[in-house]
Amino acid sequence: MPTQKSEQQTNYQEMLHKALEEGARQTVTELITGLHPAEIADVLEALPRELRPELWHELPDATRGEVLLEAHGQVRKHLIEASDKEELLAALDTLEMDELADLDAALPKSVVHAMKQGMDVDQRNRYEAVRSYPDDTAGGLMDLDAASVRADVNLKAVLRYLRRLRGREGQLPEHLDSIMVVDDDYTYLGILRLSDVVSLDSEMLVSEAMTTGVPSIPVLTPATNVARLFEDRDLISAAVISDSGRLLGRITIDDVVDVMRKEAEHEVMSRAGLTKATDMFGPLIPSVSRRAIWLGVNLVNAFIAAWVIGLFEQSIDKMVALAILMPVVASMGGVAGNQTLTLVTRGIALGQIGRSNTRHLLFRELVLSMLNGILWALVVAFVVVLWFDNLQLGIVFGSALIINLLMGAMAGTLMPLALQRLGIDPALAGGVLLIATTDVVGFMSFLGLATLFLL
Amino acid sequence: MPTQKSEQQTNYQEMLHKALEEGARQTVTELITGLHPAEIADVLEALPRELRPELWHELPDATRGEVLLEAHGQVRKHLIEASDKEELLAALDTLEMDELADLDAALPKSVVHAMKQGMDVDQRNRYEAVRSYPDDTAGGLMDLDAASVRADVNLKAVLRYLRRLRGREGQLPEHLDSIMVVDDDYTYLGILRLSDVVSLDSEMLVSEAMTTGVPSIPVLTPATNVARLFEDRDLISAAVISDSGRLLGRITIDDVVDVMRKEAEHEVMSRAGLTKATDMFGPLIPSVSRRAIWLGVNLVNAFIAAWVIGLFEQSIDKMVALAILMPVVASMGGVAGNQTLTLVTRGIALGQIGRSNTRHLLFRELVLSMLNGILWALVVAFVVVLWFDNLQLGIVFGSALIINLLMGAMAGTLMPLALQRLGIDPALAGGVLLIATTDVVGFMSFLGLATLFLL
Repeated sequence: MPTQKSEQQTNYQEMLHKALEEGARQTVTELITGLHPAEIADVLEALPRELRPELWHELPDATRGEVLLEAHGQVRKHLIEASDKEELLAALDTLEMDELADLDAALPKSVVHAMKQGMDVDQRNRYEAVRSYPDDTAGGLMDLDAASVRADVNLKAVLRYLRRLRGREGQLPEHLDSIMVVDDDYTYLGILRLSDVVSLDSEMLVSEAMTTGVPSIPVLTPATNVARLFEDRDLISAAVISDSGRLLGRITIDDVVDVMRKEAEHEVMSRAGLTKATDMFGPLIPSVSRRAIWLGVNLVNAFIAAWVIGLFEQSIDKMVALAILMPVVASMGGVAGNQTLTLVTRGIALGQIGRSNTRHLLFRELVLSMLNGILWALVVAFVVVLWFDNLQLGIVFGSALIINLLMGAMAGTLMPLALQRLGIDPALAGGVLLIATTDVVGFMSFLGLATLFLL
Repeated sequence: MPTQKSEQQTNYQEMLHKALEEGARQTVTELITGLHPAEIADVLEALPRELRPELWHELPDATRGEVLLEAHGQVRKHLIEASDKEELLAALDTLEMDELADLDAALPKSVVHAMKQGMDVDQRNRYEAVRSYPDDTAGGLMDLDAASVRADVNLKAVLRYLRRLRGREGQLPEHLDSIMVVDDDYTYLGILRLSDVVSLDSEMLVSEAMTTGVPSIPVLTPATNVARLFEDRDLISAAVISDSGRLLGRITIDDVVDVMRKEAEHEVMSRAGLTKATDMFGPLIPSVSRRAIWLGVNLVNAFIAAWVIGLFEQSIDKMVALAILMPVVASMGGVAGNQTLTLVTRGIALGQIGRSNTRHLLFRELVLSMLNGILWALVVAFVVVLWFDNLQLGIVFGSALIINLLMGAMAGTLMPLALQRLGIDPALAGGVLLIATTDVVGFMSFLGLATLFLL
């Protein structure tokens, strides 16, 4: 079903592509009118590098700021490089302080400096407050515009407060589904849902109408844990509090959705040794060097496996069938191990694997591999007997297959757990180490058994 | 940083695990008190199979229904199997009609029958309405409890309506951040945000206060497109409409977050030939057979590669170094191709790749592979000269490496696009086909060049 949208998008991209190449500014403007900044960021990402500035310069200032916020790492960098200082300052002028804090690492120093010069004291304080927390924590995610009320007023007073707030600011904070309830010291007490404000008696006190069971989030909570909490509890917004329990800000679901998307991308991309911010049309040289490193790591692996094969040079010289069959044993171990690895890496990410169930899990994976090993060992032995008319070779081949599938299960279970304990991302390093193991064990077991029993 | 939560969870899991094994019911109850149903579902998933029913039977009926809703496919099935008909009916009794419609495919027929018997006409109509749309469409995701008002009343009347609704139902729909605005025919006109209801003048008409720019979602829109729309537009809720524009229901962000999680899992899991609902502690036999099929597909691949090697039996017989080095060429092509494949598969999923930029992308990937190929060809040629003291072998090896990296780039770009056009999921089939290609081309180019120039 995803085809449907892809096709629409593709046609759209093609029209835009053509209009940009022909310099048909009128058509370009028509095509992008009505698009949300996030959609424009997607469109920019799908354009080849040389066409991006063309579209970028057609956008109004107010849209450019939002597009920068929505664009992925390298695309954002590219757009910033394509703009001069005045353009950037005009684009940034439309953003909130906490949004600026998300962007500033990517901006040229002179632009950040000029931007700070333009802030008043209150703005600069808010800006520095958000900047002081790491990006991947609740503090880095939060908005500072949490509307708050005291517990000892009634709902009628809350309505008056909201009308005044709107009159002053021109609008209420985005995604306002609830107001934070605090005491005199600004200590967080609970939330007051707007749906309760509109449906309960207006004489009721906030302390009676508020909901207290909603979790509040300590400011240094890792972003991934924030995402899981929102997901598990079906939250729309939650309060961010300091160590002493004071209300600092508010996280809303749209920030969390971005975290979730980045996490999912990170998992898929890092398995192929790519960074999550990889740009399909990024500049060539950084792309070459990033991929070169990954290929280099895998080359070392491959040469270690080659060295293992080299140990059995004489055996292969005597029986060429060994060279023909050995990649089969290695690859089957890798495929089976990768299934276990994927399952275990996911379990770790979800916090579902710990000391109490590791043994269970390892045992189960070993049993699964044993059953699959026996099944496929019988099949391959049969094929080998047909092909090479050599029963002993078939038996050796089948046995090596079973050994390597068991190795795959063991490495796939224990390796991500060990990496996790060492503080290394299992999604990045697990696959490489697994294949190194199953290649070495695959070649070693097959060639070793053959040398022992066949020659 | 994710470690922090994992450790807490792990300790928790261990305590629970121990209490269940010892049959300490009191401790179990204490441990699960205060957990959200989604968290209980996570805990159940991390428990070995034999302990799951122990915990399940300790849960109150009202919680069980929610836990069933939150549990993943196979875990859900396991819990349903562990319950008798009366337990299930008691658990289901606490759920909404649209939630029941999500569950019923997993329930025994007799339970579904008894459940329907217990419904009144209105309930049965709502239940059948949701059931009539496929699960992976907007209709399958939507809630039926969209509160709606007419455009020609004022905000004071809206407040009265909401108080009445609450009085009648006991509560307002969950995550109510806005009310749908409809005309006399129930045609969708726009949304009325609660934040506007509370902050605008109560004499204002709904037609003046409502927001019309928010997209409404046709009922048969694929779930993945719904997720992308929510993500791009930062939506909290949106109206689901029929072909004729009538309001049918409402989708809220928490349903969408579930879709996003499932999508991300699907991508990671299907690359290893696992289904997204794979249960770490699922029953053995189905797990064996699912994995066996995947291993079988890969075995066919591996034997095709072995057959290619077999074509060069005589060459290997003359020069064993070929057998030692050939897996290096094959594996490097696979690693490089997998990077391209990952990038392109993601681009397809995001709708960023179409006819207009395929040629650009292919060209870029080929250039990247060429540069990396030259770099690593020089390195491996140097290693081979040191190892085997054979310059010609080094040159042949380096050339084969370049050929196979180019093949990897080409297959990694064109294969997922071709699969997509054929309606086959590139995440599932792409990797297998890619490795088959790079193995065959790797062995063929290296052994072929060696046969031509070295022997």
